[in-house]
Amino acid sequence: MARIEDIAKKLNISKGTVSKALNGAPDVSETLRKSVLETAVELGYSRSMRKRGAKKLCLFIENMGYSAPSDFGYDIVIGFRKAAEPAGFEVCCVPLDAQTQKNYPYDEYMLQHNYTAAFFLGLSLADVWLHQLQTSHTPAVLLDNYIRANPFTCYVGVDNNEGMDLAVAYLKNMGHRKIGFLSGGLGSYINQIRYRAFFHALRKNDLPDDHTLAGSDYFFSECLQKHLPSLLHQKATAIICAHDLLAHTLIIRCRELGLRVPDDLSIVGFDDLPLCDYTSPPLTTIRQDRTQLGKSAFYALSSLLNSVPISTLLLHAQLVVRQSTGTAPGKVPVLQVR
Amino acid sequence: MARIEDIAKKLNISKGTVSKALNGAPDVSETLRKSVLETAVELGYSRSMRKRGAKKLCLFIENMGYSAPSDFGYDIVIGFRKAAEPAGFEVCCVPLDAQTQKNYPYDEYMLQHNYTAAFFLGLSLADVWLHQLQTSHTPAVLLDNYIRANPFTCYVGVDNNEGMDLAVAYLKNMGHRKIGFLSGGLGSYINQIRYRAFFHALRKNDLPDDHTLAGSDYFFSECLQKHLPSLLHQKATAIICAHDLLAHTLIIRCRELGLRVPDDLSIVGFDDLPLCDYTSPPLTTIRQDRTQLGKSAFYALSSLLNSVPISTLLLHAQLVVRQSTGTAPGKVPVLQVR
Repeated sequence: MARIEDIAKKLNISKGTVSKALNGAPDVSETLRKSVLETAVELGYSRSMRKRGAKKLCLFIENMGYSAPSDFGYDIVIGFRKAAEPAGFEVCCVPLDAQTQKNYPYDEYMLQHNYTAAFFLGLSLADVWLHQLQTSHTPAVLLDNYIRANPFTCYVGVDNNEGMDLAVAYLKNMGHRKIGFLSGGLGSYINQIRYRAFFHALRKNDLPDDHTLAGSDYFFSECLQKHLPSLLHQKATAIICAHDLLAHTLIIRCRELGLRVPDDLSIVGFDDLPLCDYTSPPLTTIRQDRTQLGKSAFYALSSLLNSVPISTLLLHAQLVVRQSTGTAPGKVPVLQVR
Repeated sequence: MARIEDIAKKLNISKGTVSKALNGAPDVSETLRKSVLETAVELGYSRSMRKRGAKKLCLFIENMGYSAPSDFGYDIVIGFRKAAEPAGFEVCCVPLDAQTQKNYPYDEYMLQHNYTAAFFLGLSLADVWLHQLQTSHTPAVLLDNYIRANPFTCYVGVDNNEGMDLAVAYLKNMGHRKIGFLSGGLGSYINQIRYRAFFHALRKNDLPDDHTLAGSDYFFSECLQKHLPSLLHQKATAIICAHDLLAHTLIIRCRELGLRVPDDLSIVGFDDLPLCDYTSPPLTTIRQDRTQLGKSAFYALSSLLNSVPISTLLLHAQLVVRQSTGTAPGKVPVLQVR
C-alpha cells in the first residue's frame, strides 16, 4: 500500500510538498494539489494509514431523515457517535447528493477532506460512489449495501432472513396460509434482500412460494394501487410490508376499503419506527435496533481500520407483536409464539 | 434477566449461600449446589452478568485439530487469544465430546466452571449442545454454525457466497463452462452453506445450475468413488471442493486415473490450509484468514457481552490462484482475473 514517500517519488517532488498538498496548505498551487490527490488515489493511499492526529470519520446520509427522533436515521447516527467519539474519533455528518458524487471522485473527496473512513446511510444502487467503492482503499461501512470482494468495505444491517422468518412463522401459527408481501422499488439493495427473504421464509415454513404473492413499486400509493387488489383477490389473509411507512399506508387504505385490521387482514411492518406505537391499530413489526446498528457500524469500521476484513455484520431481528395482527379469519391459533 | 437475589428468593436461601454455591465453596452441599445451578439456569442467570473479577472464556473444540500449525484450528485459537487476552480475559481451550454434552446441560456446565462466555469450533448439527444453545442466555460465538433468533449467539465465518462466486467467475473466465462441486457430508452447517453457495454462484455467473453437478459424502474416498465418475462423464472441466483436504485427495485420484491437473481438469479447494503450497501441483483455493477469524470471534463475543445482539459476522473471502487451475481444455481465457 502506498505511503507519502511513494507519491513524492512518482511526482518527483519532496515528501514535505506531498504532505502540504494533502493537508491543504495555502502555499501549494491548486494544480499541484489536484495532481497529488489523483496520484494518491491511483496508488491506493488513504488517510487510514496516518498514525498521528485526531481521526475524522465521515457519516454520509442520503435518501433518509435523521434530524428528528421519529426519523429512521436518528438513532443510527446517535449510536454511531456514542461508540466512535469515546474511542477518540471525530464524526462529521454530511448529507450526500448526486451532484457531489458527480463532481468529486469518492477517494479524492475523502483525502481532500481529511476523512479516515466513512459510514454510508441510504445509498441507492444507482449512486455513482457505490460503484467507486468497489475499488476504493478507504475503509467504508455501508448500511444495507453490500460490496463484493473489496476488503476495505463492510455491509452492516439487520438479519432480514431471520426477521422475515419470525414474521412468517408467527403468521402461520396464527392460522394464515396465504401471506402477501409489498415493498418499495427494487432499485435498492435492501428491498431486493427483503423480497428474497420473504420467499425464503415462505419455503422455510412450508408455504407455497407463489411469485404473484409479492408486489413492489417505488411509490407507496402506486404499490398499493397495483398490487393490493390482486392480493385480496387471491384471498391473502395477511400482508408483510418491507417498511413500516408502507404498512401504515396500507392500514389507512384498508380503512378506506372497509376492511378491518386485523379481523379481515393482518398487517406486519418492518423496522419498528416510533410511529408503530401510534398507528391505529398499533403495528406489529420486525424490529431492527437502530442504536445498536449505529454502534455495530463503528465496531465494523474499527475492525477494517485494524485490517480485519469484515464483509458482513448482521444484528439479530426481533418480532414485536402489537394489534395489527391476529388469527386468520375463521381460524384458531395453532401455537402462541411469545 | 435474573440476578443472584432472584435465585436466593426462589430457593428461599441467602444471597451469600447462592454465591458460595455458584463459586463451588466447600461448605455447600452437592445437592444444594445442584439445585442452585438448576435454578440459575432456569431463571436465565449467566456469568456474563458478574461485574467483578477476571472473566474466563471457554473455547470449545470438536471435530478439528488445533495443536499443530498445519491444523485448521491452530491459527483460529491463536487469533482469538491474541484479541481476548490483552482485553483482560482468560481463555481456556476445552476439547468437547458427545459424552460431556450428554452428562452436563450446557448452561450448567458454563456456570459450574465459571465461564463468562463461549467460542465454539467444529460443532456438528447432531450435537446436543447446539440445540441447547437455541435458548441459552450465556453469550456464545459459533464458528460456521448459525442459531436463529437467540440474541445471545452469533455466527462467525467467511463469506462463502463471495468465495464461491470468486472461484466460479475465475473458472468461467478461464473458459470453463461445466464446473462440478464435491463436499463432505451435509450433516454439517458449513457444508450445507457451501453447497448452496456453489449453486448460487453458478446462477450469478449465468451457468446452468444442474444438481447432478454436485456430490457429497462424509468420507472423502467414498465421495470421490460415488461422484467423480459422473462428473467426468458429464465432461466437467473443473471441480471445486468444499475443503482443501478433499481437493488434495482429488488431485491424487486424478493422478491414479491418468488425468493431468490442470490440463485435463482444474481443481479448486476451500480454506487455504498450509498444505496448499505443497500439493502437486500447488492448490488454487478460496482463502479464509484463520487468525482474523479468531480475532473477529472475540470482537463478536465482546459485542454480545455488551448487549449488542450481533447475529452474523462474516470475513471477506479471497481467491488464491496457484497451479491446480488453468484454461479449460481447448480454450483461451476470456479475461484474466487478478
